[in-house]
Amino acid sequence: MKRIGVGVIGFGTIGAGVVDLLQKNGDEITRRLGAELELVKVADLDIESDRGVDIERSKLSTDVADVLENPAVDIVVELVGGYEPARTFVKRALANGKSVVTANKALLAVHGDEIITAAEEAGCDILFEAAVGGGIPILRSIREGLAANRIRTIYGILNGTTNYILTEMQEKGESFERVLKEAQKLGYAEADPTFDVEGVDAAHKLTLLATMAFGKKVSFESVFTEGISSITPQDIEYAHDFGYEVKLLGVAKFDGDRVEARVHPTMIPKNHLLSAVRGVYNAIYVDADFLGPSLYYGQGAGREATASAVVGDLIELARDKVAGVKGRVAPLSFPLSKMADARIKPTGDIRCRYYVRLTAVDEPGVLSRISGALGKYEISIESVVQKGRDEGQAVPLVLMIHEAKEADIMAALDEIMAMKVCLGDPVVIRVER
Amino acid sequence: MKRIGVGVIGFGTIGAGVVDLLQKNGDEITRRLGAELELVKVADLDIESDRGVDIERSKLSTDVADVLENPAVDIVVELVGGYEPARTFVKRALANGKSVVTANKALLAVHGDEIITAAEEAGCDILFEAAVGGGIPILRSIREGLAANRIRTIYGILNGTTNYILTEMQEKGESFERVLKEAQKLGYAEADPTFDVEGVDAAHKLTLLATMAFGKKVSFESVFTEGISSITPQDIEYAHDFGYEVKLLGVAKFDGDRVEARVHPTMIPKNHLLSAVRGVYNAIYVDADFLGPSLYYGQGAGREATASAVVGDLIELARDKVAGVKGRVAPLSFPLSKMADARIKPTGDIRCRYYVRLTAVDEPGVLSRISGALGKYEISIESVVQKGRDEGQAVPLVLMIHEAKEADIMAALDEIMAMKVCLGDPVVIRVER
Repeated sequence: MKRIGVGVIGFGTIGAGVVDLLQKNGDEITRRLGAELELVKVADLDIESDRGVDIERSKLSTDVADVLENPAVDIVVELVGGYEPARTFVKRALANGKSVVTANKALLAVHGDEIITAAEEAGCDILFEAAVGGGIPILRSIREGLAANRIRTIYGILNGTTNYILTEMQEKGESFERVLKEAQKLGYAEADPTFDVEGVDAAHKLTLLATMAFGKKVSFESVFTEGISSITPQDIEYAHDFGYEVKLLGVAKFDGDRVEARVHPTMIPKNHLLSAVRGVYNAIYVDADFLGPSLYYGQGAGREATASAVVGDLIELARDKVAGVKGRVAPLSFPLSKMADARIKPTGDIRCRYYVRLTAVDEPGVLSRISGALGKYEISIESVVQKGRDEGQAVPLVLMIHEAKEADIMAALDEIMAMKVCLGDPVVIRVER
Repeated sequence: MKRIGVGVIGFGTIGAGVVDLLQKNGDEITRRLGAELELVKVADLDIESDRGVDIERSKLSTDVADVLENPAVDIVVELVGGYEPARTFVKRALANGKSVVTANKALLAVHGDEIITAAEEAGCDILFEAAVGGGIPILRSIREGLAANRIRTIYGILNGTTNYILTEMQEKGESFERVLKEAQKLGYAEADPTFDVEGVDAAHKLTLLATMAFGKKVSFESVFTEGISSITPQDIEYAHDFGYEVKLLGVAKFDGDRVEARVHPTMIPKNHLLSAVRGVYNAIYVDADFLGPSLYYGQGAGREATASAVVGDLIELARDKVAGVKGRVAPLSFPLSKMADARIKPTGDIRCRYYVRLTAVDEPGVLSRISGALGKYEISIESVVQKGRDEGQAVPLVLMIHEAKEADIMAALDEIMAMKVCLGDPVVIRVER
């Protein structure tokens, strides 16, 4: 029986999940492959803590070279996360002729070009299904299942933490701050939640999705990113009244010329499948020219689901190894040499519908002045709701605006703010159908 | 530039879709592959009708040998459908060393063993993504994305025609017969709709899904199959009152020992994602040990979506061809030699919840006699609804029943029927959560 040696760097939650999966399902994997995935070595600085899996002491090492330089290791699994030393480890593995499986979205979104080039030069493979959508086989679907299509649009709920927070805010009517604290207690949010709640993690994932879907190099810096910390339960309630749910959505579109890629709170119709995605689950909606709309749903994070994606990649590489091939499929779906830099549509050029909530001073003529400013930019209002009103006090004024250009909306809002008839900042939520 | 020759047998709707796709997206496919998918020949008995695509006359032939015996054809696409002559064509292609792509679920569900054996013996590949879920990459997801898992449960909306009919019945409150007629007019149902409405098509697809997911040979004959023709708008309305939708569901479960596979109208909770799948769309929900629940949604039929799946398979085989390998992945996910016959759970042993609608004679003591008969089999009633009642007339009596054994339910219903207190047959709909 052929054996394929696996080395793991990083024995944290996911690393332990991978070890657990290989132990529990190894026999079925062997039955599929006609070969054995053999765990050769696990490297981590901390090999004393209990990870909840039984592993022979001899398979643990604090020296990463025991994985990277080990001739018995065919495939290296990088689960360190972050930019360094993960980047160095991945490049060393590739330089040593070992293929790599990683869950590291940050590394690939920011240094993808460098890493993929290193893989191509070494004639090795690198797979990273776990980097986007956790256990959902979305990258494989784009790279293979949908390979006959030109993909036009992607909408993704790509971050479980923020989807959990928005779901709780909606169901309990509680504030962002309160729900975040609860999520931190439950382990659904990090002590420093910035990466998740400000949309950075989702933007990393969207970078990879857009690059693979459109076959253009989309840089992480070009992704417009806005988090959910300014969303209030009131906005979620108003959204409901208009027939929408509020989700942190990754949106990527390609019109054949320019790419737009953005992560922001988004109102989507209540009856859209994405609206039914609750809690820590993720889902990716893809619109392709021949397939039409399709959707992929599952757990976007967690020990078991992520291990499922990592070991799925190991099985794919093992199948290649058994067949005696390398580099069978380009990691980004298109060979790097055939991918041009994406022409990015400036944020101001984006067109969508908008929800705008203003806190207006309750004086005669205010609504007329506000709608006048919008009209000047040819922005048309679909509906206005003025909620609760105490004589002489500020009132929330909610506007649903027909499709308009982002630059026009922002310019109109600047004018409205300059009129001094509103208190605080306007809340703007983009609306997609 | 390497060329991979493609021959198509069957120039109907899907065949024309494949030709259209190769023409429209050929450049992008070449950019992905670094090789060209070249349409060499299309064979059909009718090459005169207009198929809505431009194709050189010289590429059309009425002689199937121009595909099957053509040295320029590397991959044969079989789109004839049905058992014969499709089976003969596929086997001839394989015997001639050509790999095969097919959308033929009937052929594979009934003669899969023979066809896959022929492929293995010839050292060729056979792919059939379009056979299940139309354009949804569900087979590829099971074979590769979820390959690290033991799959435990599959729930699938696998037939677009019946899902369209049930959706329309629900939304318009119209009868099965009336909606079926409308569906036939719109081209969503065949002139002879038996295969679709009686669940046969869904059972073909479930046979393939269960076989691949569990790695056991599940025979088509062992799939319990019941259609939707006896469902009434009243049942759908009662289901709503209880918080359910009615769907024609393919259900496959594996407990590590026995497999159950069944297709029947099923009540599922309104807030389940599958309940949101409307019209001709399909979706497959998969529960796996490490990944947990995941769902795949898209168009289950149609010219473009099916062509997307067929050409996706062509691209996979072309990647193998470019890499110089064959037989890299077992078509059924596990090699045939490693697959035992599934031990099928007899229908009577199935356990689920039940909706039962009886038309009871309005006499004193009837409900007590009915519940007595159920109690004798230790079947417990969750709720009873007796709708509308005219003195001395028959009344619909709707029972929601806690989890019970199918054999017990059927025996109890036989006893109830023997009491002569009910008119007509009982309507039984299984309930899954």
